[in-house]
Amino acid sequence: MLNSTKTLSVFALGGINEIGKNMYVIQYGDDLLMIDCGSKFPDESLLGVDLIIQDISYLQENKEKIRALLVTHGHEDHIGGIPYLLKQLNVPVYATRLTLGLIELKLREHGLLRDTELNLVDSDSNFEFGTISVSFFKTSHSIPDCLGIVFQTPEGTVVHTGDFKFDLTPVGGDYADLHKMAKIGEKGVLLLLSESTNAERPGFSQSERIVGEHIEDAFRRADQKIFISTFASNVHRIQQIIDAAIKTNRKIGLLGRSMVNVVSVAEELGYLTIPEGMIVEANEINGMDPERVVVICTGSQGEPMAALSRLSTGTYRQVSVLPGDTVILSSSPIPGNEKSVSRIVDNLFLLGAKVIYGSGSTSGMHVSGHGFQEELKLMLTLMKPKYFIPIHGEYRMLQQHRALAESVGVERENIFIINNGDVVDIEQSVARQTRTVQAGHIFVDGLGVGEVGKMILRDRKLLSEEGMLLIILTMSKTDGKLLTSPDTISRGFVYERGAEDLYKELNDLIVTIVQNFDRPNRNRRSDLKHNIRKSTEKMLFARTKKRPMILPFIIEI
Amino acid sequence: MLNSTKTLSVFALGGINEIGKNMYVIQYGDDLLMIDCGSKFPDESLLGVDLIIQDISYLQENKEKIRALLVTHGHEDHIGGIPYLLKQLNVPVYATRLTLGLIELKLREHGLLRDTELNLVDSDSNFEFGTISVSFFKTSHSIPDCLGIVFQTPEGTVVHTGDFKFDLTPVGGDYADLHKMAKIGEKGVLLLLSESTNAERPGFSQSERIVGEHIEDAFRRADQKIFISTFASNVHRIQQIIDAAIKTNRKIGLLGRSMVNVVSVAEELGYLTIPEGMIVEANEINGMDPERVVVICTGSQGEPMAALSRLSTGTYRQVSVLPGDTVILSSSPIPGNEKSVSRIVDNLFLLGAKVIYGSGSTSGMHVSGHGFQEELKLMLTLMKPKYFIPIHGEYRMLQQHRALAESVGVERENIFIINNGDVVDIEQSVARQTRTVQAGHIFVDGLGVGEVGKMILRDRKLLSEEGMLLIILTMSKTDGKLLTSPDTISRGFVYERGAEDLYKELNDLIVTIVQNFDRPNRNRRSDLKHNIRKSTEKMLFARTKKRPMILPFIIEI
Repeated sequence: MLNSTKTLSVFALGGINEIGKNMYVIQYGDDLLMIDCGSKFPDESLLGVDLIIQDISYLQENKEKIRALLVTHGHEDHIGGIPYLLKQLNVPVYATRLTLGLIELKLREHGLLRDTELNLVDSDSNFEFGTISVSFFKTSHSIPDCLGIVFQTPEGTVVHTGDFKFDLTPVGGDYADLHKMAKIGEKGVLLLLSESTNAERPGFSQSERIVGEHIEDAFRRADQKIFISTFASNVHRIQQIIDAAIKTNRKIGLLGRSMVNVVSVAEELGYLTIPEGMIVEANEINGMDPERVVVICTGSQGEPMAALSRLSTGTYRQVSVLPGDTVILSSSPIPGNEKSVSRIVDNLFLLGAKVIYGSGSTSGMHVSGHGFQEELKLMLTLMKPKYFIPIHGEYRMLQQHRALAESVGVERENIFIINNGDVVDIEQSVARQTRTVQAGHIFVDGLGVGEVGKMILRDRKLLSEEGMLLIILTMSKTDGKLLTSPDTISRGFVYERGAEDLYKELNDLIVTIVQNFDRPNRNRRSDLKHNIRKSTEKMLFARTKKRPMILPFIIEI
Repeated sequence: MLNSTKTLSVFALGGINEIGKNMYVIQYGDDLLMIDCGSKFPDESLLGVDLIIQDISYLQENKEKIRALLVTHGHEDHIGGIPYLLKQLNVPVYATRLTLGLIELKLREHGLLRDTELNLVDSDSNFEFGTISVSFFKTSHSIPDCLGIVFQTPEGTVVHTGDFKFDLTPVGGDYADLHKMAKIGEKGVLLLLSESTNAERPGFSQSERIVGEHIEDAFRRADQKIFISTFASNVHRIQQIIDAAIKTNRKIGLLGRSMVNVVSVAEELGYLTIPEGMIVEANEINGMDPERVVVICTGSQGEPMAALSRLSTGTYRQVSVLPGDTVILSSSPIPGNEKSVSRIVDNLFLLGAKVIYGSGSTSGMHVSGHGFQEELKLMLTLMKPKYFIPIHGEYRMLQQHRALAESVGVERENIFIINNGDVVDIEQSVARQTRTVQAGHIFVDGLGVGEVGKMILRDRKLLSEEGMLLIILTMSKTDGKLLTSPDTISRGFVYERGAEDLYKELNDLIVTIVQNFDRPNRNRRSDLKHNIRKSTEKMLFARTKKRPMILPFIIEI
């Protein structure tokens, strides 16, 4: 029973066997703490789905025990689900200043700002949540103000790393607090949850600082307008771009809603230093001396509606990329986005731009925000946990992370490769994984949350590949004879125009079926529909090798 | 005019600004030669399309001039379109033994084998096609028996490289004939067409031979069954796998239709050496000593129906991957396939397999078959062409290839970055690109070739993301009143069950529209449909943020 006051229970409601929608739970008796509440973008098989969030049934059933939502940092996969959570459960939120600023942007959009309790945290904060006390340590990552979290429970100490790398020359002084981590490890860690994003990559990641140097070099070589695209939330990267612009005597234009929003929040909160008069409006850019401007824009992942994509096709109303301009992609495509990014690069070349692209190692314009294998081993070595759960990664990454943990001395039987919903219970220092709680994914599809089921997705898939054919029969109620010729409507399937023979054959087939149909029982309608569906499907497949969704519809008068 | 007897014309009907469906044309007066006839796989935006081939209108209009189709090698992007071409134009085909063998497989499937003239070529062959004489040179690539082609025309020599790398320690003795290339270059090349696939990658590609060494090492470390997946056409790779199996005393199972087919053709033609009794049947594998078997399978690109994918989900009927088995992905994901490959790796880990994956540089289990920048420069240096057309690549690759050509001394104004259909005409040693011929892509969709237009694809896209809603009104012909309540059918959109309120509201809205509709003119029906579409769309978007395809249908009695 989760209600036992003697058990420490740790589990994920999202973030395991996936990159995205992170949410972890630490519970001791009646004290339940949540860590992060992210969202995830759907892959191409989830046709039409906008966003994926967690199934929070467990939290709803235990809502009186929830003490807090603690947020490690402000990336979408850690904060994107918060508005949907808060609509169901009004829980107090704890986060650092920048993270809170980004959460507030979301809450304002969803009309939730007034009713949410937001608590400011820094790395020195301490909180008591019933039997669990919480403290923090600084980490470095691709957004400022990141924290790892330490939970002191009656069973012992649990550490959640958040997302991290060990950047020893970070931008903006966001040092990982190695000394504090060492102290935590020295005092003894019962259980470590550590992120696994780059568990497949050998070595040590490069410092964000080297990107700044490459950007400055490229700015010096550019002789017309410069466009540079990156994640809006990568505030350090944006600071380095601004610094390079200052040094090369260029002003800054910002394109893309999230870029404008995040820069404004980050500047207001003191995470970005932008000299007075540095920023120019989008509509001024085309009129400026091309050697005096840098445009920072969204869309580095090839998102079709973002600024870079529209610039690449010449459809951004106020600003144009001209021959000789320099375009820098300060990013690496996330798996799945390679093709859309390549398409944009092609289009930029077509416009005559000099394009600097490619992953960090080839262009020097990007480094990862997640630690590589040596850094994951460094974290494990600092924390010296008895038990270890690799989190935040797909299955193969968790496996690789386990091997890393073993290599630095964690016992294999003390490492738990879990799934979302699998509970690790620790009682009297013994950990066991024997039970699960409900976990899963909920699709946000337009305004519908959770309403898109498998049936709808299966229909969309069929419609998308084969199209549909509607067959309408108007029949006499009295004698079952057709009152008019059958009507057919097709969409996404062979059109009637140009395929008159096929539709004539189809029509004849349907008429024959109806004429020969003679089963005056109570299932008459559905039997007739079934016959029509079967026979037309067979005929159409033989003639076209396609299997459209066939929808027979009978009207009886 | 193309008919001018004094002009040499060179153009692509496919293969430029894309990877796939290669087809190039060399024409001098009334002598027209085609090089390659490939197909291309559709990307995810072409919903339901099976294959993409060339628009061959130009060839149909000039069919009496076509002397031959010359094929450089047996990869799909060079031979996949041949059956579709031959159904339209019965032209003689020229290719090397292995390439012919693979073409024959296709022709047999399409029932075209008997009526096609197939001519065997080797690197010493010479042919006269009217005013153009043709000879060949050996290249190395990821399939045996590859050729570059030399065209001697009255205007001068044109060289087409085919696909190539410079593998100086090739498997199976498929050396690139450097000396012959040097001689061709020495005699003077007017125009070079060279492939651009890896024009973005610095350095020199690695030899296929190192993959063999890594495979053998991995086989020695494996202590149960071994599965290894690669392209069926990579005959050298398969030979190396067989050699490693012999050395480690394992037998070979083959899974996947194309693997069985290609291995059988390659062995029959002498491109594969397989000792007697080496091959075991699929249904024997599970029963064998796991240390004595290697399974070679298709599906290294994550294709959902291929052997590896089915093995990874435990749904391959005859063979199972068990905990402790080794699975090697001897391949690198083609852009766009990363996610499906990752999913397979995850599933294999879940089965408890040891999985060896990743690109060549990280796992050593794959090298590219296309030359990197230094190799492209080597080809340009050997050929010393006056004019240069980079082919076989997306736009950014062609751009990079141009820069490489300039760096080894080709004049910038003598380099033509063209599009499919752009014709380069050379007359009295002067090249110009001023005119185009018809070029484009034709979609193969089931049995329909070329019938899937933009409308159908647009409908499929809409259906796939938003679903559809059919509204059927049965109305009186005399007074325009509804005879029954409106019927609605939805697919891929919110289902009626669970959304009764929404459908009630929808129903009321439709009834109101019909009641208030009063326009007894000749467009009555279409006006009413228009009104219903507009109003319901607005209402549904406000309530669901989705825009299903709305299909109103009126039956008048």
